[in-house]
Amino acid sequence: MNNPLLIETEPVSYIIGNDAIEKSATKFKEFNRIIVITDENVEKHCLPVFKQKLPSLIIDGVITIISGEENKSIHQLIYIWNELTRLNVGRDDLIVNLGGGVVTDIAGMAAATFKRGVQFINFPTTLLGMVDAAIGGKTGIDFARFKNQVGLFINPTCVIIDPIFLKTLEKLHWQSGFAEVIKYGLIMDRELWQKLEGKNYNDVDDWDTLIIKAAKDKIDIVRFDALEKGIRKNLNFGHTIGHALESYYLKSGHPVTHGMAIAAGMICESWLSSKIFGMECIHMDCIVKMIDSNFERFNFTKDEIPRIMQLMEQDKKVRNNKQNFSLLRKIGKAVHEVEVETDIIIKSLEFYIDRKKCD
Amino acid sequence: MNNPLLIETEPVSYIIGNDAIEKSATKFKEFNRIIVITDENVEKHCLPVFKQKLPSLIIDGVITIISGEENKSIHQLIYIWNELTRLNVGRDDLIVNLGGGVVTDIAGMAAATFKRGVQFINFPTTLLGMVDAAIGGKTGIDFARFKNQVGLFINPTCVIIDPIFLKTLEKLHWQSGFAEVIKYGLIMDRELWQKLEGKNYNDVDDWDTLIIKAAKDKIDIVRFDALEKGIRKNLNFGHTIGHALESYYLKSGHPVTHGMAIAAGMICESWLSSKIFGMECIHMDCIVKMIDSNFERFNFTKDEIPRIMQLMEQDKKVRNNKQNFSLLRKIGKAVHEVEVETDIIIKSLEFYIDRKKCD
Repeated sequence: MNNPLLIETEPVSYIIGNDAIEKSATKFKEFNRIIVITDENVEKHCLPVFKQKLPSLIIDGVITIISGEENKSIHQLIYIWNELTRLNVGRDDLIVNLGGGVVTDIAGMAAATFKRGVQFINFPTTLLGMVDAAIGGKTGIDFARFKNQVGLFINPTCVIIDPIFLKTLEKLHWQSGFAEVIKYGLIMDRELWQKLEGKNYNDVDDWDTLIIKAAKDKIDIVRFDALEKGIRKNLNFGHTIGHALESYYLKSGHPVTHGMAIAAGMICESWLSSKIFGMECIHMDCIVKMIDSNFERFNFTKDEIPRIMQLMEQDKKVRNNKQNFSLLRKIGKAVHEVEVETDIIIKSLEFYIDRKKCD
Repeated sequence: MNNPLLIETEPVSYIIGNDAIEKSATKFKEFNRIIVITDENVEKHCLPVFKQKLPSLIIDGVITIISGEENKSIHQLIYIWNELTRLNVGRDDLIVNLGGGVVTDIAGMAAATFKRGVQFINFPTTLLGMVDAAIGGKTGIDFARFKNQVGLFINPTCVIIDPIFLKTLEKLHWQSGFAEVIKYGLIMDRELWQKLEGKNYNDVDDWDTLIIKAAKDKIDIVRFDALEKGIRKNLNFGHTIGHALESYYLKSGHPVTHGMAIAAGMICESWLSSKIFGMECIHMDCIVKMIDSNFERFNFTKDEIPRIMQLMEQDKKVRNNKQNFSLLRKIGKAVHEVEVETDIIIKSLEFYIDRKKCD
């Protein structure tokens, strides 16, 4: 078994790989009290593992929120602020965010705004958390039924990524995280894409390697552009349309996973890439095939497209009322800030519905 | 009439003095739309002045909250987020915070967290806002009946301080701001103190000079220590006990102004300064006399002290369960991070009640 990878950067340090939890023991030393924020599933399945790996750590309080994207809400943010008040948490205490993307997003925002900022460490417990949500300082909640409408950029002190937590992960969560792994391959990491191509997430046998590769891709980007002024925007490939779909299904009362929505978004935006940058048809068909072999398509109809388009207009990536996309020039190379006209976006959704091949 | 003072620093620029509003016209150019956040009083008395001074500025929306410290609440923060959603505000728009400390605190937090950050400019309209609240990037709301329990450090793009707004200011608000002006004299600016000594705020005839001096004192400190790791803590003189009193009266349903609470806090903490640092009695008596000639004393009793002490324990300045004070070594020189034992703090409140002289 290899030693975990240590990346000591400012302002965040990372420990990634097997035994990362044990190696994180020194990170707790300078703080007064330790408060864990988690959800009911993670509390049951992962908190015992966390405690067992850090037997001498004293936990002074556990705040448990309700799991699920539909609960990344102002109500739960207020619940956490109330609990932090009740526990009299101060600026010299440390908050441990133990969970998937919902926990690290909402608890990161809660920690960063309680008494104008309590330090926190992220321990992602899902694949999506390990390769994406826990890295890069984006925190927030959904609001007025828009994804991440309220939040802030604020970095955790450390991110500790230990694959041990994945042992208890449900199938749906594997699939959701896999969409982001595919995305890194497509936007920046041809070598990763080559490892993935033709694989179904059920067949992957070297998750540890894939997680380290994907997490490093994300760290490389956010170190360079923490506030998403430039190259970090490449990470939004698949997300402009994907977020609108995610919001649409959340609004309709039938939430889908982030990965399912992003997978659909990547099909639409690969089509946009071929239409706008002339990405080769053979590449586009490869991408669509790979995604289709891992994700079932949504069955929205043409009549529903106007409502999906409306949600897209509230996207944070809108500038001067034009939709900005991150698209692919080819596999492994993304370009950001591509303005796309509304009628072409609609066509990409129709392409998705029609299940056509590239033409 | 002098030209306004321009201070171009990173990341904030300041324009202070007469005609500051006119001079701010260039600051709006790079933004798409302009949204004003204000309260009902300021909308009536100051928004017309603002519009008249910037006749070519197009305002695309006005969000009006309810005035008063008791309304610096999560409910109004949510109201602003909803309005920003309704107006479809994006990251290329600019928010103008027009008002006193309540408006700049809550609207600053709303702007900084909407879509993970929309830029904002503060136009303080009260004396307290001009010399304190609008400068330095502290934003937030009161929560669970604790002052500024939730918020963040985030700087406005610019702060525009134009005394023209003070023409409509009520007496109580002059008095409230005057407490902070006195504080700058005591902690860092002996020259300012000498201008103030023996004066009642009703008799001041050179407000423009005092505002520029006090605002510059605050800017000097926050430039040096934005995140309150060191010297900025000096600004907390009078505030550890003052905030507890402000929370106490807010909780009791009889809110007092920030300045009244801080004035009382400065009396108690001057006594602590004389007891702990041996600040000379003659200085302490001068300070108490000056404050008493401007502020009536609160009439809480010894029986109420335990409840006031309880509120102090939730203070953000608590470290390792010890109360940290910023105290005076002498007039014009403060020292921060002074740990004070509970029984001595109680004695300082008793000294306040007993109206004794220094001994």
